[in-house]
Amino acid sequence: MSDTKRTEIGTLGEFGLIDRLTQDWPQYHKNTLKGVGDDAAVIDDGDEGILVTTDMLIEGIHFDLAYHPLKHLGYKSIIVNLSDIYAMNGHAEQVFVSVGISNRFSVEAMEELYAGIRAACEVYQVDLAGGDTCSSGKGLVISVTAIGRAPKDKIVYRSGAKAGDIICITGDLGAAYLGLQILEREKQIFMAHPDVQPDLEEQDYLIGRQLKPEARKDMIDTFARFQFLPTAMIDISDGLSSDLMHICKQSGTGARLEEAQIPIREDAEMMALKFQLDPITCALSGGEDYELLFTAEPDDLEKLRVMPGVFIIGEIVAKEDGIMLQTSAGQLHRLQAQGWAHF
Amino acid sequence: MSDTKRTEIGTLGEFGLIDRLTQDWPQYHKNTLKGVGDDAAVIDDGDEGILVTTDMLIEGIHFDLAYHPLKHLGYKSIIVNLSDIYAMNGHAEQVFVSVGISNRFSVEAMEELYAGIRAACEVYQVDLAGGDTCSSGKGLVISVTAIGRAPKDKIVYRSGAKAGDIICITGDLGAAYLGLQILEREKQIFMAHPDVQPDLEEQDYLIGRQLKPEARKDMIDTFARFQFLPTAMIDISDGLSSDLMHICKQSGTGARLEEAQIPIREDAEMMALKFQLDPITCALSGGEDYELLFTAEPDDLEKLRVMPGVFIIGEIVAKEDGIMLQTSAGQLHRLQAQGWAHF
Repeated sequence: MSDTKRTEIGTLGEFGLIDRLTQDWPQYHKNTLKGVGDDAAVIDDGDEGILVTTDMLIEGIHFDLAYHPLKHLGYKSIIVNLSDIYAMNGHAEQVFVSVGISNRFSVEAMEELYAGIRAACEVYQVDLAGGDTCSSGKGLVISVTAIGRAPKDKIVYRSGAKAGDIICITGDLGAAYLGLQILEREKQIFMAHPDVQPDLEEQDYLIGRQLKPEARKDMIDTFARFQFLPTAMIDISDGLSSDLMHICKQSGTGARLEEAQIPIREDAEMMALKFQLDPITCALSGGEDYELLFTAEPDDLEKLRVMPGVFIIGEIVAKEDGIMLQTSAGQLHRLQAQGWAHF
Repeated sequence: MSDTKRTEIGTLGEFGLIDRLTQDWPQYHKNTLKGVGDDAAVIDDGDEGILVTTDMLIEGIHFDLAYHPLKHLGYKSIIVNLSDIYAMNGHAEQVFVSVGISNRFSVEAMEELYAGIRAACEVYQVDLAGGDTCSSGKGLVISVTAIGRAPKDKIVYRSGAKAGDIICITGDLGAAYLGLQILEREKQIFMAHPDVQPDLEEQDYLIGRQLKPEARKDMIDTFARFQFLPTAMIDISDGLSSDLMHICKQSGTGARLEEAQIPIREDAEMMALKFQLDPITCALSGGEDYELLFTAEPDDLEKLRVMPGVFIIGEIVAKEDGIMLQTSAGQLHRLQAQGWAHF
């Protein structure tokens, strides 16, 4: 293709590329309710919707086996997919795992990976229902598809937020990103000085958020117990800024986040400062926290105030008011999407 | 893991590895009817079964971009998954495509790939309902999940064959493998002598079978029209020998193939001889023909004789009689599994 036009993928970014590749496709089945563009696709099944999501993890891009134990990696590969099902307010039932491996990996290494996959299946009560194992030539590739269900009138899309809605998050942010920074730093130190012992003390939480995250199935159950339905929802994979922008784009709204309300743990804050990073930037742009970001009608405020594990962090506003961060000092800044750009 | 036991994956093979990794898993959802071990998983949905299959294609292992046009590759990546749905006697409805790409690929290259994916979606009338695009660091990885449906009493498993059943195939075998040999030969010649023109004349069929195969949706429709239900079915991805062995293993039977009845096109036969290969070995072990291999009750013989596109190639026998090939000369040989071993 040397004499044809060449546009670098980096000029579009991941989401721009997907938009361009998938625009104006024909649809043949009226049961395909929601296709590309949410956490999971929705297939109509009478009173229920079947939720389907798929994610690919590639060695050297999404994980580094220098510090990611295979068992944790197997666990995480399931979690990131289940999280997408919960982000639709559904329950996951089956997972399908395809693994591409090189001959660098032994049967025992694969057993470690599958022990982690199995642990996640047990904790979240999902069935491993299929998959594929093949050679990759080089490196490890894991592709997981998760299938879930929800009553159709309980499915929460990214597109349902309205001006005046309350913006909530289910847990602290930034820790997974800081865990990654610690692991990367220790890897660099180890490569330069293999005899130096790693300095991982008191960083269990941050490292754990990166290596072995959990998905917020418990929150879906909490919502049901409180008879509460979010107006829009997404899981934090790319970062609060980027994921909030997805909600705003699909809902046709703006948003105002309150910096002072964004939950950041003290150990994350301390670690950010140690790395000379702004803690709020880590929370906004770090990603991989797998908390649920959701919006709620103002009428639900009282429910949200007593619901365990919910932090109110802002308000949906009109589109023309933009997507803004109100700093603790009272200034308004326009939010930047700074999710993980792999391209 | 230098001081722990290391078992090479090659000692187990792909199917042995999957068996080992997935044995004795817990099951939490009673709607998971069939998990690992058939062309597709089956999820109970009232009168119907939801069929789910997933497959991963990795550059350098499953395809070579030196001769596989991206558009054909996109088409093929869908076909290999649809074929698994048809092999359950179901109809495919949605596909999910995850692509990992390096910055070697341009937006235009991705548009070629998706043009092929779209063409397959149009020909087979399936919806692209989701997926994922990410960086791969190096090389191209394509993971496709296909979802289909069938009335539960019409789903055909690998496990339903009984001694006395007729073994049938829906088309000629070996051509895809010979197409690959031609392409590999031309690549070697091109690398040694870049000025030599490729010798691809009159090999359109063989090369097409490799680069742009079709799935036998038409046969599923034919079966319905004839009110015919196979007792067991699988698609030919690994090769007739290996795929027949899957049926026999899961059905607890043996089989006897009649060499003289195995359909091989004349151009495939000529090309095999040109490569000093045994045509019947190409048909038995080549793979990637994506024809349907199925078994039928003896009572259906008259239907099968008039059904277009069906070749009767043997008979299911008792397990203790083994899996045998009766040669044209009348000798009986034990079949070897010689599917594509990537490890």
